[in-house]
Amino acid sequence: MSSELEVIARLGRRLAPPPPGEVWIGDDTAVLVPPAGGWQLLAADAVVEGVHADLAVLTVADLGWRAVVANVSDVAAMGGIPAHCVVTVAGRRGLDIDTLYDGVVGAAVAYGCPVVGGDLVSSPVTVVTVAVTGTVDGSPVLRSGARPGDTVWVTGPLGASAAGLRQLRAGGADPALAAAHTRPRPLLAEGTAARRAGATAMIDVSDGFAADLWHVAEASGVGFELEQVPVAPGATPEEALGGGEDYQLVFTAPDDGRVRAAFAGLPAPVRIGRCSGATGKGTLAGAPLPHLGWQHNC
Amino acid sequence: MSSELEVIARLGRRLAPPPPGEVWIGDDTAVLVPPAGGWQLLAADAVVEGVHADLAVLTVADLGWRAVVANVSDVAAMGGIPAHCVVTVAGRRGLDIDTLYDGVVGAAVAYGCPVVGGDLVSSPVTVVTVAVTGTVDGSPVLRSGARPGDTVWVTGPLGASAAGLRQLRAGGADPALAAAHTRPRPLLAEGTAARRAGATAMIDVSDGFAADLWHVAEASGVGFELEQVPVAPGATPEEALGGGEDYQLVFTAPDDGRVRAAFAGLPAPVRIGRCSGATGKGTLAGAPLPHLGWQHNC
Repeated sequence: MSSELEVIARLGRRLAPPPPGEVWIGDDTAVLVPPAGGWQLLAADAVVEGVHADLAVLTVADLGWRAVVANVSDVAAMGGIPAHCVVTVAGRRGLDIDTLYDGVVGAAVAYGCPVVGGDLVSSPVTVVTVAVTGTVDGSPVLRSGARPGDTVWVTGPLGASAAGLRQLRAGGADPALAAAHTRPRPLLAEGTAARRAGATAMIDVSDGFAADLWHVAEASGVGFELEQVPVAPGATPEEALGGGEDYQLVFTAPDDGRVRAAFAGLPAPVRIGRCSGATGKGTLAGAPLPHLGWQHNC
Repeated sequence: MSSELEVIARLGRRLAPPPPGEVWIGDDTAVLVPPAGGWQLLAADAVVEGVHADLAVLTVADLGWRAVVANVSDVAAMGGIPAHCVVTVAGRRGLDIDTLYDGVVGAAVAYGCPVVGGDLVSSPVTVVTVAVTGTVDGSPVLRSGARPGDTVWVTGPLGASAAGLRQLRAGGADPALAAAHTRPRPLLAEGTAARRAGATAMIDVSDGFAADLWHVAEASGVGFELEQVPVAPGATPEEALGGGEDYQLVFTAPDDGRVRAAFAGLPAPVRIGRCSGATGKGTLAGAPLPHLGWQHNC
């Protein structure tokens, strides 16, 4: 038996066992009970060592965690909940796959998204690709449903991940900012609350707030007028607008009262402005909001 | 709008439109009608430039084709049919993404597995990761169901892909062997036929025939006694036993008559031997079958 098979067997033992009838790791595909009704969600995201993950400031376990969270956050941004994921590791020689899996399994357990399969191959550079399935009751919240007059909300302050990266690179970071960068959290409860509040459009802040809000505006054919953007303590305004991977959710909704009611028991979202009918025009405190952001996930 | 977004928009226009109510490319996740009953299959495989794909002999379009086919073949090996895929491209600078998508879309159309989402990121080396969903009516054919006395079958001759690679590297290849390497075909009809024939275990030849048969034997707790292995014209016996990516299906079944009946109208599968109760012992024409093969997909 090759050492690669042994690694896979060892990793498989760390994963949750499947429910009766299902088959997870170890066959040609996973075999799963399909969701009963509703919609099925499916997405994939990759994390590339040195591109999305600076291993001078992130551990290999962080890289695994972040690859899962990037996907779970996409499900949150539809108002859904994750079901399963498959994890493909193209690993460079010497990669500590067990440590990588500490992060993968940690996030999978934390967010109820068990690893049911994947692939492990060698590569000159480490690329961790996760595909996730999810479900949503009722209608998923797309990017394209915002309407003029809807209010614009964000689930929390922005820029913490970028500020954490900056401080980590400088050699010392506030623990909360460092954690925002190394161990981001997907906001599943908030995504469901926004959906239940009648959100008309939603996106997670992965590329950067401004870039992601522009995705919504373009998909919906609206403009927007923002009064303010909440900046995480320790972050700069530029980091709040352009920093990626905050995984806060930005959503639009027609009814402020329903939003406040749906978020009862959760951190209160911040109302930051309003959608307009001026397609292609977006402002913050009266000044044009630039198309900041560096990377696109679809 | 960034050029990356433009690329994604351009690629999206090449893909099939979703059925009413579904959302494919362009949101946080794809939104899909879940399968109605049966089982859902989920798998992922990666193709790494220079590791699984030698771009001295393969085009970038071939690389895209092969990444989709590796996944569809996993679904075939369960006796299922593919439903959707998500394609993540970690692309090196200068990668011709449109040409890559020629192959991706070609295979997706050919095998009924539309691309509904994915990710496009930059990377020092190109890694194409595909995750596939599928469905199967009735029971999927696992690797673990072979029983002593079952006959062992393969859907066709082996070694064509490895022989094609060898000839292409030497500067001139038989067209059929070259195509076996550059444009392999997943055997969906054959996988369904084997399932309907009552196959007890099945795998696709991706790692190499011997390695893959050993996967079945180990998962099932059986041994095997092979009389023969069909060698593709132009391939060596070593290529037939150890060459990967043939995507022929190897399966076990208790009833030869049902196998022959289920394959009516398809190329006849070849009966190559029988499972034994001697766990861990596998022979070909009386000699031990080595654990050949170079890479594992799970």
